[in-house]
This record gives sequence, structure tokens and C-alpha cells, in this order.
Amino acid sequence: MEISHIEHIGIAVADLEGAIAFYENTLGLKCYRIEEVSDQKVKTAFFQVGQTKIELLESTAADGPITKFIDKKGEGLHHLAFAVKNIEKQLEEVSAKGVQLIDSKPRKGAEGLDIAFLHPKSTRGVLTELCEKR
Amino acid sequence: MEISHIEHIGIAVADLEGAIAFYENTLGLKCYRIEEVSDQKVKTAFFQVGQTKIELLESTAADGPITKFIDKKGEGLHHLAFAVKNIEKQLEEVSAKGVQLIDSKPRKGAEGLDIAFLHPKSTRGVLTELCEKR
Repeated sequence: MEISHIEHIGIAVADLEGAIAFYENTLGLKCYRIEEVSDQKVKTAFFQVGQTKIELLESTAADGPITKFIDKKGEGLHHLAFAVKNIEKQLEEVSAKGVQLIDSKPRKGAEGLDIAFLHPKSTRGVLTELCEKR
Repeated sequence: MEISHIEHIGIAVADLEGAIAFYENTLGLKCYRIEEVSDQKVKTAFFQVGQTKIELLESTAADGPITKFIDKKGEGLHHLAFAVKNIEKQLEEVSAKGVQLIDSKPRKGAEGLDIAFLHPKSTRGVLTELCEKR
């Protein structure tokens, strides 16, 4: 695998509007985009912090993954996304090394990126996303 | 608050040696430093990923914070650390805005940084660290 940088860090929040206000007013970061990703049943808000983005995630469905995550673990750090090139090749490579894939092929994520998730059971508990900007 | 970038992402692991092997052999990252921080009852391993580091944290004590975290939530994403200047001023500023501080004054962390933690109860569930390299 060849990772260039951390593309973003996903954070599960119960109340997107309140969380945006906290990140802006208390941490001094600026939300530059809000986007609903219906495929993942989330509404997201993005903040650029140096090379990496923070992606706040609010659930849009009672059966969505963010609802389940917050029910189980509470609000907080949700996933870690690495920027890669040739995402299909990287998926093949980590799969061959025994990593369980949530997405065996890339799909479209927020901000038009090609994305795929690796299962936290085979990544030491970290829900890991690969992202490619084409 | 003025944040320049994400200094590191802390990840709680049960087995540091095994986790380092996973990050090196499967993710293709290179561990450049292992350090024990007795103050925090952890042994840490660092990987540079673009501008940001990944810090793996293994507990060195049965009553340590990483043991408690893993018991409660399992292995995984543990904390988010922002690089700042003038850390004392930033702590005063966020405290005045209602953020509960774990460390009201900076102390020495891994890699010789001045660090201070904010309580996750007042940062939307994210254990947040401020770091300054002097």
C-alpha cells in the first residue's frame, strides 16, 4: 500500500449544527462544505486543517451506521481515511494480505472521491477508508 | 484558537508489536520511533503520514487510561491532537469558552512536545490534545 497522507478523519456527532458551531466558535476552524451522502445515510460537514480534513458525520436514518455507532460507543472519532492512488490495486493488495474489505470495489463518497472501507476487525479496531481523487 | 494542522492521531492498541507489524507490512507505513511515556502509562510507536503522525498507544499498566479505554470501547481511534502555537494562551481561551481542561497547564508529552488534553465531555466526545513544538 502507498499512502500519501491522511485525507480526512471522520467524527460521529449527534447534532451536526451544534457540532459545527463548536468547531467554528471554540476551535476556530471554518466549515467549507455541508453535503448529504444518502448512500451512507449521513449528513457531513467538512473543515480543512492543514493537509487533512475533519469530516463531521450526523446520521440521517435510525438504522444508519452513525446511529448504531453512537448507540454503541457514543459520539467521537469514527474513521480514518488515507489518500491513495490506484485504489483498486490497493484494495487487491490489502485483501491478498488478509484484510477484510467492506467495499471490494470503490464507490463514490463525499466530495466526489472514489472511496472504499476496510473492516475494523482486520485493521486493529480502526474503521479505515481509502480515498482517491481522480 | 489557531490550529495549524493535525499533529497526530492517537490509536489504542492491545499489542504494540503486532500493530506495528500491521501498519508496516499491510499499510506500508514505517515506524520511525518507539517511546515509553511513563507519565501517561503508555508505550508509543510513531509513523509519519504526510503532515500528520499516527501514534499507536499500548498500555503499560492495568490501571492506565489505555487499558480502561480498550476495556470500554475496544481497540481503535483514541484521540486527536492539534498543533498550536502559544499553548497556554489557547488553553485559557478554550477554557473561557466553557471547555473543561484535563490539563490546565501544558506538560511534556512524547517527542518532547508541550501538550495538554481537553476533556471529551466538552469536545463532542473527542479526546482532544493540543501540542506545541518549542
